[in-house]
Amino acid sequence: MSPAASTPAYRRLSVEERRAQLLDAALSLFAHRAPEEVSLDGVAEAAGVSRPLVYRYFPGGKQQLYEAALRSAAEELRHCFDEPHEGPLLPRLARALDRYLSFVDSHDAGFTALLQGGSVVETSRTTAIVDGVRRAAAEHILSHLEVPDPGPRLRMTVRVWITAVEAASLIWLDEGKQPPAAELRDWLVEQFVAVLTVTAARDAQTAALVRALASADA
Amino acid sequence: MSPAASTPAYRRLSVEERRAQLLDAALSLFAHRAPEEVSLDGVAEAAGVSRPLVYRYFPGGKQQLYEAALRSAAEELRHCFDEPHEGPLLPRLARALDRYLSFVDSHDAGFTALLQGGSVVETSRTTAIVDGVRRAAAEHILSHLEVPDPGPRLRMTVRVWITAVEAASLIWLDEGKQPPAAELRDWLVEQFVAVLTVTAARDAQTAALVRALASADA
Repeated sequence: MSPAASTPAYRRLSVEERRAQLLDAALSLFAHRAPEEVSLDGVAEAAGVSRPLVYRYFPGGKQQLYEAALRSAAEELRHCFDEPHEGPLLPRLARALDRYLSFVDSHDAGFTALLQGGSVVETSRTTAIVDGVRRAAAEHILSHLEVPDPGPRLRMTVRVWITAVEAASLIWLDEGKQPPAAELRDWLVEQFVAVLTVTAARDAQTAALVRALASADA
Repeated sequence: MSPAASTPAYRRLSVEERRAQLLDAALSLFAHRAPEEVSLDGVAEAAGVSRPLVYRYFPGGKQQLYEAALRSAAEELRHCFDEPHEGPLLPRLARALDRYLSFVDSHDAGFTALLQGGSVVETSRTTAIVDGVRRAAAEHILSHLEVPDPGPRLRMTVRVWITAVEAASLIWLDEGKQPPAAELRDWLVEQFVAVLTVTAARDAQTAALVRALASADA
């Protein structure tokens, strides 16, 4: 992701390169202001191209560009939870959270806009993009837990924890990124174990998982 | 809140009564379908009045009616956490959750629409209404904890738990209201204690609160 300024307007880019350049410029604008404050003119200026060129790539205008930028951000967020199935489980979760919080840190206002909606261009399609990230994160985590056929109580616990991660990230941005990211990460990992332990009292499958986590930890 | 059918159209209602009647009709429609599927004609029909009369009360049309219905639902949700400051803390929380889950149960699709947004009439104003409910719930709970001047770690824990309650409620609706509401309530109360306990390891104020909770429980 090179800054737009390093790509002189006269250089001939491929369609894919140009598209990526425009999405980069749009993402960085959406990352720092509310979607309703982003204009196609602003995107053209940030990318060092003409407004008609932006329209050529995104004939649907701002809404289409916004959705494409969200999809690209969502893709990046999905990769945060893409962790090799190796080594103890909790350090894997900690590494995924490190990537997630680093995404939150670098996109701040854009992350808030992505999750909180409340923009004039919010639609059921953009909500579906965000829901897709949540579901993908839950599936990644469940696959790491290596529980064959996870039941509804375990699934609910994981899904609720993911929204807790989101909420904590939004509050963290709101509070000027306090506490430090490493503390927030550890707190979230410990919360994960704590909420699983609560579920374990009612669910044999989760109880077995918690025992496995404790023995791997020991 | 009498059903619209019990109010014959010829009865002369006061302005306030008429407004409440229209909001009731709107709420019950928004409660069972997505906002984009609700029409002013439908509201007029449900309330047994003419479409022009609905416009007289809500000249802003569907958007205004939607926001007024949301505000009325938000007001009802706020009251769920309005609990006397009497008796042990966790049973107070359980009673608040009983009211909250009963609201979720009776408004199902409307609750989902309220929280998930993603509707064509979603705006930053409707998001602010929902955020207001969250903040009010957090303030209610913090006031029950009787911690003078709660610090950022305790506040974050309470706010994150509230979003966990919301997420669990949405998933609960999605899963055909399983597990039973009483089990979900107990699970949420136990989660509250569990996440406070995690925070207590890093925050003296929360640690004192967890000790007080444990001794009240004993």
